[in-house]
Amino acid sequence: MSQVTSIDVARLAGVSQATVSRALRDIRGTSEATRARVRAAARELGYVPQQSGRSLATRLTNRIGIVTGELANPFYPALVAPMVERLHEHGYLAVLIPDEDLDDLDPVQLIDGSLDGVLLTTIHQDSRLPAELSRRGVPRVLVNRDVSLGDEDASVADNVAGARQVARLLLAAGHRRIAFLGGPPTVRTNVQRAEAFRAALERHGIGVSARLWSYGPFDLDHGRLAFARFMAQDAPPTAVFCANDVLALGALEAARAARLAVPRDVTVVGFDDIPMAALSMIDLTTVGCDLDAMARSAADLLIDRIADPGRPARRLVHPTRLVLRGTHGPPPGNPDI
Amino acid sequence: MSQVTSIDVARLAGVSQATVSRALRDIRGTSEATRARVRAAARELGYVPQQSGRSLATRLTNRIGIVTGELANPFYPALVAPMVERLHEHGYLAVLIPDEDLDDLDPVQLIDGSLDGVLLTTIHQDSRLPAELSRRGVPRVLVNRDVSLGDEDASVADNVAGARQVARLLLAAGHRRIAFLGGPPTVRTNVQRAEAFRAALERHGIGVSARLWSYGPFDLDHGRLAFARFMAQDAPPTAVFCANDVLALGALEAARAARLAVPRDVTVVGFDDIPMAALSMIDLTTVGCDLDAMARSAADLLIDRIADPGRPARRLVHPTRLVLRGTHGPPPGNPDI
Repeated sequence: MSQVTSIDVARLAGVSQATVSRALRDIRGTSEATRARVRAAARELGYVPQQSGRSLATRLTNRIGIVTGELANPFYPALVAPMVERLHEHGYLAVLIPDEDLDDLDPVQLIDGSLDGVLLTTIHQDSRLPAELSRRGVPRVLVNRDVSLGDEDASVADNVAGARQVARLLLAAGHRRIAFLGGPPTVRTNVQRAEAFRAALERHGIGVSARLWSYGPFDLDHGRLAFARFMAQDAPPTAVFCANDVLALGALEAARAARLAVPRDVTVVGFDDIPMAALSMIDLTTVGCDLDAMARSAADLLIDRIADPGRPARRLVHPTRLVLRGTHGPPPGNPDI
Repeated sequence: MSQVTSIDVARLAGVSQATVSRALRDIRGTSEATRARVRAAARELGYVPQQSGRSLATRLTNRIGIVTGELANPFYPALVAPMVERLHEHGYLAVLIPDEDLDDLDPVQLIDGSLDGVLLTTIHQDSRLPAELSRRGVPRVLVNRDVSLGDEDASVADNVAGARQVARLLLAAGHRRIAFLGGPPTVRTNVQRAEAFRAALERHGIGVSARLWSYGPFDLDHGRLAFARFMAQDAPPTAVFCANDVLALGALEAARAARLAVPRDVTVVGFDDIPMAALSMIDLTTVGCDLDAMARSAADLLIDRIADPGRPARRLVHPTRLVLRGTHGPPPGNPDI
């Protein structure tokens, strides 16, 4: 009989492998009932958790770099945490490299014998890191941010489908004056969302005014300022699609400051479904993607690539779904739709 | 003449060293005006930014571990980001180790020749890591979480002063039935806040009922549940002091669900001043501490300790301040105070 693994226990208990690991270690975040179910499954299968570190014994450098955007943007912790966890499950440690600090670090030092691979969740356009990684043949996987069209391992959200879902939602509700509050024009994630959104509107005969289109940093301030600029126009938009949730939070803040009720006076929709979007105080309608799955499968792709450097590139495109909460509605003066 | 450093430029420009580094690299987060001022100061002093990585050239292992709590708790990214940045300024990379994963990792593997030191922002009571670090003489610094009373380098908030400030605020507003919504009883940060708060109330003759006192995980769910339990009692509290902002967010969520207006029906105060507490949609009255300073000085303490293993331990206790926003007021029926 082959050795029982935590995957078998997870299957029997009807939970994820991570939950098995947590439940057997009595870690918060699993309920009493789940822990009992997992323990029962482990007993039934005769599963014995692996001794800590045994799987590490044969490895010398077991470090993988994660290049992240600003951790102050809540999107990144939500993406980084499951990657770190998954790497640990594979016996790797995560070296965290915020992209803003990359210029201070020597890519050669960074890579040379110290990192077995790199997960790139974002990267400055002028960073030397990707070129240096390629030159030295260090395995890398793109996560979330789709920095190239080339033949690379990647685990990304279906940005095009997500933006189309938002366009359909807004058009069906009767919106015709629609603004796009976007991220940096150099960031592919943003460009994919923007272009798919524009194309979907145009297919329905909705022209897009340059005055209702904003590119800028993916931060609260840009959300606030661009929203205020949109709403100060003679013909303000009745709906604003924000290219990420942080921008949408900025827009909601600006709406509040301007005493505009959302969604009565204006609809605001985000993208990413970061954890705080679900708070009832925020209650943001947005586009969700299984960040956990995206992060974990990116780690798996990298581990797999390290083991088999010659295999063809794989692109995993994770489906998106509309998360309908409280910030969308019909345009003002059009209450019946 | 000694070499001009970024510290000199920072002094002349009247900004932080990090701002100099960002401004000279044209990174977002600095205004046009600041960038101009920093550039002028750099020109005036003849400052030339160090070539990337030059300072790393003589080091072989330049990795420092950061043991963190769940990154999903927004407190940790706010603490980790400036530590990572400061370590990079010192030429070190940060290896991120969420405490929930520690049990999966072999401390010996973790430490052996791979980490020059460890910053401990939290640690499970039963972790083998602190003992292993001590046994092997690996430098460590406690950050925020004050896990021991011993002679250790630590950079922590003045939890006692912060809790007293909250007690004074609530008593001065006329509150007499006051609840404490706390974190885990095994976490010293929580216990310090709880005991200082209890003592301050008792000094003013306010007895503390066990039914208005809750210990549990530092998470939204505990905030929600404990708040609902408090408010369902015959004599519900008129004010709830939450031992961190995440618990306070949970309390605000529960208040909303119960159609209780904050602060008209009940006052809610947090602790930590995480970034989202400042959103106008949340507008949480809380206790702030300069997390950036705490994080950066912790990194400095560790670098210093690595350079001088024999020096006496240093404890940096960072002052706290009340951040008065929109969730505190007089008790209901007592509008004049």
